[in-house]
Amino acid sequence: MPDRHLTRAVSVGAVVIGGGSPIAVQSMTNTDTRDPAATLAQIARLAEAGCEIVRVAIPHADALPGFQVICEASPLPVVADIHFDHRLAIEAARRGAAKLRINPGNIGSLDRVDAAIEAAGEAGIAVRIGVNAGSLAEEYRDKDWPLAEKLVASAVAFCEHVSARGFEEIVVSAKASSVNATIDAYRLLSTRVPYPLHIGVTEAGTMLSGTVKSSVGLGVLLAEGIGDTLRVSLTADPVEEVHVGWEILAALDIRRRGPELVSCPTCGRCEVDLVPIAQEVERRLRTMTTPVKVAVMGCVVNGPGEARDADVGVASGKGVGLIFRRGEVVRKVAEAEIVDALFEEIAAFEAEASGPAGS
Amino acid sequence: MPDRHLTRAVSVGAVVIGGGSPIAVQSMTNTDTRDPAATLAQIARLAEAGCEIVRVAIPHADALPGFQVICEASPLPVVADIHFDHRLAIEAARRGAAKLRINPGNIGSLDRVDAAIEAAGEAGIAVRIGVNAGSLAEEYRDKDWPLAEKLVASAVAFCEHVSARGFEEIVVSAKASSVNATIDAYRLLSTRVPYPLHIGVTEAGTMLSGTVKSSVGLGVLLAEGIGDTLRVSLTADPVEEVHVGWEILAALDIRRRGPELVSCPTCGRCEVDLVPIAQEVERRLRTMTTPVKVAVMGCVVNGPGEARDADVGVASGKGVGLIFRRGEVVRKVAEAEIVDALFEEIAAFEAEASGPAGS
Repeated sequence: MPDRHLTRAVSVGAVVIGGGSPIAVQSMTNTDTRDPAATLAQIARLAEAGCEIVRVAIPHADALPGFQVICEASPLPVVADIHFDHRLAIEAARRGAAKLRINPGNIGSLDRVDAAIEAAGEAGIAVRIGVNAGSLAEEYRDKDWPLAEKLVASAVAFCEHVSARGFEEIVVSAKASSVNATIDAYRLLSTRVPYPLHIGVTEAGTMLSGTVKSSVGLGVLLAEGIGDTLRVSLTADPVEEVHVGWEILAALDIRRRGPELVSCPTCGRCEVDLVPIAQEVERRLRTMTTPVKVAVMGCVVNGPGEARDADVGVASGKGVGLIFRRGEVVRKVAEAEIVDALFEEIAAFEAEASGPAGS
Repeated sequence: MPDRHLTRAVSVGAVVIGGGSPIAVQSMTNTDTRDPAATLAQIARLAEAGCEIVRVAIPHADALPGFQVICEASPLPVVADIHFDHRLAIEAARRGAAKLRINPGNIGSLDRVDAAIEAAGEAGIAVRIGVNAGSLAEEYRDKDWPLAEKLVASAVAFCEHVSARGFEEIVVSAKASSVNATIDAYRLLSTRVPYPLHIGVTEAGTMLSGTVKSSVGLGVLLAEGIGDTLRVSLTADPVEEVHVGWEILAALDIRRRGPELVSCPTCGRCEVDLVPIAQEVERRLRTMTTPVKVAVMGCVVNGPGEARDADVGVASGKGVGLIFRRGEVVRKVAEAEIVDALFEEIAAFEAEASGPAGS
C-alpha cells in the first residue's frame, strides 16, 4: 500500500485527525437533539461500538440547550452539524462543541462564515468545511464541470478564504452519493489542501447498498493513502455505521478493533451446517477486544490451510470439527460442540498470549 | 477510471469472460450435488437474482450423476469445482460442465493435470486455474515470499504449462482471505497472464464482514480495470453473494441491474420516520428491472438537491414528503403516503421513458 498522504494534525477534543494519527471512526446521532437523554443514550451505544467522534445536528435554536447538555456529558467529542444559519454555529461553539461542521453551500455570505470561524477560534475548536453534492453553492452548481471538480473548487475556495484570515484548524470533506465522483473529488482534494480529509460517500443508501458503496469508495481511497477520518452513511441504526467503518479499516489491515473472523462460503462439499456456526461465532466474538484471528471452515480443501494460519480455527468434516490452535490440531469434536470448543481454545490462546500464569 | 485490462475472450456456455465483455457475476451452490432437485432450485433462485455462471462442487464420484442432471437442466452455464482427484474433472467434462475449475495446489502430478485439460479440450470447454491461499501447492507454500507472489507464481507456472501444450481456454484466479494479499496478487497477475481474471476474496466471512471485505478488495481491483468475472464469497445464502456482486458493480457504475436507490442516513434534523420508508422502497424496487434512480431523503439540507437529481425522489419535511419527478416537485403528501406516491411517480416515469402512449 502507498504511504498515507501527510496532512496537518487537527485536534477534535482528545482525538487528533490527520498528521499520521490513526484514522478515526465517526458517526452521527439520529435522535432529536432537543432530547439530550435519548441522544446521550445513542452516543453511549456508538462509543461502545467503537465510535470516536460523534456529530449532532442543530437544526434550530431550540436544539441549543440540549446540545449543551450533550456536550457536557458525552464520552466522545461532539461535532455541531450546522446548515443555513451561522448564528447556530456561533452558539454551538460557545456551548461546548469540539468542532463545527459548516457547509459553504448554504451558510450564506462570507461575512457570516467569518463570524462562525471567529467563534471557533475563540473557543479553540476545529471547523470542518463540508461540501456536499446535494447542497453545492449556487455559483458552482451550474458550472459545466465534472461534479468532482465543482465539489473541490467550492471546498478549496472556502479553505483559502478561511486560511487567509489566519484560521488553520480545518478538516475538509467533499461528498457525493456517486462513488466515482466521491473518489475523484478526494483524489483531487488530497493534492489541493494540506488539511486532514474526512471521507465518506453521502446518502449511500440502506444497509446492503450503503455498506457496499461505502466499502468500495472508502476502500479505494484508503488503499491510496487518502483519508484521515471516516464516516459511513447508512439509512439504518448509526451503530451499524460504526461497525461498517471498522470493518473497512480492518479489511485493509489499517486498524483493527477486536477479533478477525475468516469463514468459508460453504458449498456442496460441506458436511456440517456451517452458516449458523459462523454466525454464532461472530456474535460471541463481537464482545471481545482481543485481536485473535479465528477461522471457521467447512471442508478439507482450504479448511486445514486457513485453520492452521489462524490463531484458532476449525476445519469441518462429516458431522465433526478438527479444532486448531496456533497451527496444531488440538481436538476433534462433534458438530454441536464446535462453537464451545472454539471458544475454549480462544480462551486458552488469550491466556497464553497474555503471558505465563502468575506473571 | 482507467481502461479495463484487455484479456483474451473465453467462452463459458453462452457467457463470454474477458475480451471486454461485461463483467459476469458468479456464485456457487451449497446444496448437496447428489440432490439435483435441490441444487436446480437453488440455481433458479440464483439466476433470478442475476447470477450468470454457477459453480457446483463435485467432492466424490457419487456426485457425478447428479451433476449431469444439473448441467442438462440448468438455465446457467455450470462450472465443475474439482479438488484432489483429476478423474472427477475428466468425468465432469464428459457430463456437460461448461468449465472446469481445478486447483493446481492439490490436483497432484502434472500428468493428472494434463489428463484433465485434455478432457476439457475434447469437450470444447474452458478451465479455471484457481489458486487459493488455503491450498497452495507445497513447493510454493514454504517459500519465504510474500503470499501474493507465491499465489501468482503457482498460477503462472500452471498457465504456462497448460499453454505450452496448446490449451488457451484459460481463466485464472488467485485468492486469499487477506484483502491486501488478494489485491496484490491480482495486480501482479494482470501483468503476467493474458487470460481473463476471475476475482474474489476467499473465505471473506459472514454477511457484514464478508460484504465489506469483498467490496473493498474487488472495488479496488475493478477501479483499476482489473477483473473479468467476480464471485463474492459469503458464509450466507449464495443469493446474497449475487446481490452483493451486483451492488459492487453498480457502485462503480460498471454495470447496473435494475433501479438505483439513494437514501440519507437520517439525523436529528429528520422529521419523518425514514428508515422504514427507505427499507420499504428498497424492498419494492428489488423486483423491478428498470434502471430508474430513486432518492429518499429526510430533510431540506441535501434532500431537494438529491431528489431533483434523481428520476423520482422525496425530500421530507415535518410529517410530509415533497415528491419530485424529473427534477420538478409534482406533489406534497402525508408521511404515510410517501411510499405509494413514489411508486405512482416511478410508474409514470417508466411510462414516459418507454415512449408516448399508443406507440
